[in-house]
Amino acid sequence: MEDESWQKLVEELCEGKPRALARLISRVESRTPGWQQAMKALYPRTGKARIIGITGSPGAGKSSLVSRLAAGFVERGRRVGVIAVDPSSPFSGGALLGDRLRMRELATTPDVYIRSMATRGSLGGLAQGTRDVSRVLDAAGYDLVLIETVGVGQDEIEIVKAADVVALVCVPGQGDSVQALKAGVMEIADLFVVNKADREGADQVVADIRGMLALAGDDRGDLERVFSTNALTGQGLDALTDALSVRVEGLPLAPDRAGERVRDELLTLVERGIARRLRARLVGDGRLEAAVEQIRTRQSDPYTLAESLLADLASLEAESHD
Amino acid sequence: MEDESWQKLVEELCEGKPRALARLISRVESRTPGWQQAMKALYPRTGKARIIGITGSPGAGKSSLVSRLAAGFVERGRRVGVIAVDPSSPFSGGALLGDRLRMRELATTPDVYIRSMATRGSLGGLAQGTRDVSRVLDAAGYDLVLIETVGVGQDEIEIVKAADVVALVCVPGQGDSVQALKAGVMEIADLFVVNKADREGADQVVADIRGMLALAGDDRGDLERVFSTNALTGQGLDALTDALSVRVEGLPLAPDRAGERVRDELLTLVERGIARRLRARLVGDGRLEAAVEQIRTRQSDPYTLAESLLADLASLEAESHD
Repeated sequence: MEDESWQKLVEELCEGKPRALARLISRVESRTPGWQQAMKALYPRTGKARIIGITGSPGAGKSSLVSRLAAGFVERGRRVGVIAVDPSSPFSGGALLGDRLRMRELATTPDVYIRSMATRGSLGGLAQGTRDVSRVLDAAGYDLVLIETVGVGQDEIEIVKAADVVALVCVPGQGDSVQALKAGVMEIADLFVVNKADREGADQVVADIRGMLALAGDDRGDLERVFSTNALTGQGLDALTDALSVRVEGLPLAPDRAGERVRDELLTLVERGIARRLRARLVGDGRLEAAVEQIRTRQSDPYTLAESLLADLASLEAESHD
Repeated sequence: MEDESWQKLVEELCEGKPRALARLISRVESRTPGWQQAMKALYPRTGKARIIGITGSPGAGKSSLVSRLAAGFVERGRRVGVIAVDPSSPFSGGALLGDRLRMRELATTPDVYIRSMATRGSLGGLAQGTRDVSRVLDAAGYDLVLIETVGVGQDEIEIVKAADVVALVCVPGQGDSVQALKAGVMEIADLFVVNKADREGADQVVADIRGMLALAGDDRGDLERVFSTNALTGQGLDALTDALSVRVEGLPLAPDRAGERVRDELLTLVERGIARRLRARLVGDGRLEAAVEQIRTRQSDPYTLAESLLADLASLEAESHD
């Protein structure tokens, strides 16, 4: 596998071979040496796909909703990539058998590609990994990428910030919708979806959200922002799919926000690159273990040793690639 | 404020002045220049406090539980620090008035110190910030630190991994308990708390957790691991507080796990130090903005420019302090 050249994979990707897509994503995600070259080669083919973030607590029914949305977008003539960064997602193998079967059915449509992301110890960082995988899908001709993620946690909020449109999924009876809204997810959500709308209290959650939006004086145009759905029966899904379509077709990203995103990405790439290099160096020459021992025996403290390791930075001359 | 010397603050902290505690935490958290010197000075006074992580979804009642636990530990003769890294926590100002009043009452006990952590854009990283603040509390004589955090998200899991004992809070009717358990939080939880035990289905959740533990062949000695509580009435709180006391008094950390923690912390400190330095440099000399512009106009891509910025690393000679 390793001897298969990056260039060949990129060529095959552009010819639409699914095998190349899967391999490229795996290699880029695991930072296999040469991954930057592949991303550079792909980059000119990107910039067409729009990204929709679907976020909410575990148990809100995000995965079922994502399946329905993907099917709906395919019906509307789109090719859809799905990235699940939610560890409890059935796409990541975290859920019940029934859910998994539904997903598998969806995955056999040639216009849908489903991928779960490793959420632990992601080498390039979770948000950057999601950006990279979205770009590979973009280059492969998927013009819509749905990212499913849990709605709390700093990394997760970063992922969501990189989406063009964000939908927050709430459910009645979880008691957490208002808390989640207060916790700042509200600011980044464009649409609010009250799923499991057949449950008692669904109307109240819709009313609460509308109330909070009104209270916040939040007025993003005349478009409807709160939707009731039942991902199991499909109720309300057409309206939601249409609303998302309108939004992604809509205005281009504000220049300021685009600049901020680029800045974040660039700093992340540089920082992660340095961190990888540094880690290899410190582990390789035994300096890390020596420092760990000094701390464990309380001969020194982490702050002093981190400073002295930082001072060795000068010896970290640039290497051509890492 | 800035002209107040670090040394004086550290001295005052050791004399038990609460004002010094609050200031030191704020400065360390915001990485005010000199923060490392303060941490070095404090370090020899640390190592006594034990850390308990309380984790679970928003709406699980973690904050009420933490209040009750803190009060219970104080009754048992301990001094308790509380760190809330949950953005929906009332400690962070995210909750309802009733909760906040309860917290304020607790905060007037001299043996309890409550602090919320900024969860966004934490300069040193959320997990490292929590470690640092725990150490300041430790040096100030708090022998138990309760950390309240949401149970999902990569940063949050890192925080929890740094605790000596971890309790996962579930509630009936959220439908997510099983999903959360499957999502890998189970592996890091020592105790399971089914809160809001008056709700329908509470017994079932307890049975489900016991079933999963049995299924996983998970046998951590003879101690009871699943508890039912009602944080509002106080039901079950004594048993939980006792169980946590037994655990924190218990065996010292396994040497391997201790080594891994030290290694993680050291790498985090070095990497964040480099990142801060790099960011200041790239922003300061305009290289970052120039690169952003090249990407936005699609003259280049983030991967190429990140590499060329990395190549400039050689010019980053060590600075005495940053």
